[in-house]
Amino acid sequence: MAGAEFALIQQLKRHLGSNGKDVRLGIGDDAAWLDPAGRTLLVSTDTLVAGRHFFANVSPQDLAWKALAVNLSDLAAMGGEARWCLLNLALPPKAEGYENWIEWFAQGWRALADQHNVVLVGGDTVATDGPLSLSITVIGLASQGVMRRDAARPDDIIWVTGTLGDAAAALDWAFAERGQADWTCVCSSTHQRALEARRLRPTPRLDFALAAQAGGVACALDCSDGFLADLQHILDASDVRAQVALDTLPVSPELAECLGSDRERWQRWPLSGGDDYELILCAPPALSAFLQETAAAHALRLTPVGKILAIADPHAPAVALTWQGQQIDLPMSWGHEHVF
Amino acid sequence: MAGAEFALIQQLKRHLGSNGKDVRLGIGDDAAWLDPAGRTLLVSTDTLVAGRHFFANVSPQDLAWKALAVNLSDLAAMGGEARWCLLNLALPPKAEGYENWIEWFAQGWRALADQHNVVLVGGDTVATDGPLSLSITVIGLASQGVMRRDAARPDDIIWVTGTLGDAAAALDWAFAERGQADWTCVCSSTHQRALEARRLRPTPRLDFALAAQAGGVACALDCSDGFLADLQHILDASDVRAQVALDTLPVSPELAECLGSDRERWQRWPLSGGDDYELILCAPPALSAFLQETAAAHALRLTPVGKILAIADPHAPAVALTWQGQQIDLPMSWGHEHVF
Repeated sequence: MAGAEFALIQQLKRHLGSNGKDVRLGIGDDAAWLDPAGRTLLVSTDTLVAGRHFFANVSPQDLAWKALAVNLSDLAAMGGEARWCLLNLALPPKAEGYENWIEWFAQGWRALADQHNVVLVGGDTVATDGPLSLSITVIGLASQGVMRRDAARPDDIIWVTGTLGDAAAALDWAFAERGQADWTCVCSSTHQRALEARRLRPTPRLDFALAAQAGGVACALDCSDGFLADLQHILDASDVRAQVALDTLPVSPELAECLGSDRERWQRWPLSGGDDYELILCAPPALSAFLQETAAAHALRLTPVGKILAIADPHAPAVALTWQGQQIDLPMSWGHEHVF
Repeated sequence: MAGAEFALIQQLKRHLGSNGKDVRLGIGDDAAWLDPAGRTLLVSTDTLVAGRHFFANVSPQDLAWKALAVNLSDLAAMGGEARWCLLNLALPPKAEGYENWIEWFAQGWRALADQHNVVLVGGDTVATDGPLSLSITVIGLASQGVMRRDAARPDDIIWVTGTLGDAAAALDWAFAERGQADWTCVCSSTHQRALEARRLRPTPRLDFALAAQAGGVACALDCSDGFLADLQHILDASDVRAQVALDTLPVSPELAECLGSDRERWQRWPLSGGDDYELILCAPPALSAFLQETAAAHALRLTPVGKILAIADPHAPAVALTWQGQQIDLPMSWGHEHVF
């Protein structure tokens, strides 16, 4: 362990390592010592690599927020409470060092972590000859049950939180700005900034998800690969199929302006675009009123977009998609594209 | 998530993801769901980067063993039981893909994981344009207490498990073989292979450490940065100093052959060389008989190498070192060198 690493760890500890009452021993020994107070655990981890999962020139604040958000979103999808985090940083050599960078990174991290009382309890900081990379591990607590991807049942309503497609549209725009793609939409700069904010700072739906799980919702997944691909994960795991009305997918006013009634764009962004970190929930109709009330209590948009069906004909497509009331077919590649 | 990633995750799940009774939901959902059965948790994580922490041409079996071992060693140093692991892999593009590589990796992993009933419960697999990197997170269980680095007290005996310096000597030899260093020792190829095996496959001292903690040992650290540097961590955290007899540091017969009575080599390898993953324990003399019996019961060498002193003179060196009964001084840089 080099001196520079010690200094970075001290800096992270100072900014992010405040001990909670469930942290018996935080950053600074061989391992963190944590007290789940008799509850069960949820653990999730993600690695993000510069140039693959984020633009290398992203601000450290936005990077920290997003790296933490995507992990918190995984716990939300299970209906858990986030508690503790580990942060592994692999940093390429930089002439001016990382002291300022860590200051900004910590600021972005805290902006989200403090909302959810998530404490940094450990990690590792290493040098790399490759691109800057982060691995974040989040540990949370569950109570009696969790929401799982294999628990969708025929007749369940398919619900989506928030809006879909904003992040993917913003990403296309970001590539276009860099001369790496075309951008043909008419979209004001205010609207573009709104979409970009959604791409950079997704909102993990932890509180709503916790309430949904407690109220009996058994099936959820977070929407990271794109609605269609993630719904497909639920269908595969639950051995069911689904019917979805493409034009009922919830979209933001900003994205609606770009989409109009262009079906190709609806397919590209709300249906197939990734990185929204909204939740897909499947629940029997008896829970619909409860879910709508819970969403309202959390000031969260919640939209029914289709329903789960039993597999009658094994040759039928897993997702029967409609557009303006008419059945439509998608090329096979739809829903498996994940640009960045 | 790309198709290739799905395939690798399925492969890892098949080989390493067997569900334990404390794994309610393993690899395959947004998060793993684990049951610590009312106990407290120990969590540790390490990142290893090719070319920085291991030679890029290391075998996948040895890489897997070592990456897991260094994390298990952190739990051993706390006196915990290892239970669950997360594995984050960042893989550079490779023409032939990673299918075979993962097979071998899983083999090396299991060779160690099965000894300690450690189950893989999650992770992430991403592509990178940089060197191959791994982050491993291990979660274990503690009972009433843990062994901490800040719990050394004056008059404690300093103990070391196993032998020191083998890995560092083998690393010097490995660099020499690559034409990047000199190697002046006379050492048979059999002995070199024994040292190399210690470098590639360190042994985490979990069972012994668990027994030591249960028997009342309050202070331990694993020896990753080198004995002197790691002892320094204990002294700093505990606000004490130490007296150590350099020539009592435990060395293997193979290393003893290279060392002879060359003090420079004793300083370079057993005293300052890293990557041994042995334990340093500090315990009052009343626990000496218990510790020796416990080590014998685990067929583990355990050696007293010095004792903890109170800080009387703030200008005295933190470690008073003797060689053949005589006090010796070290250049300031000793104990802060960590080659690889």
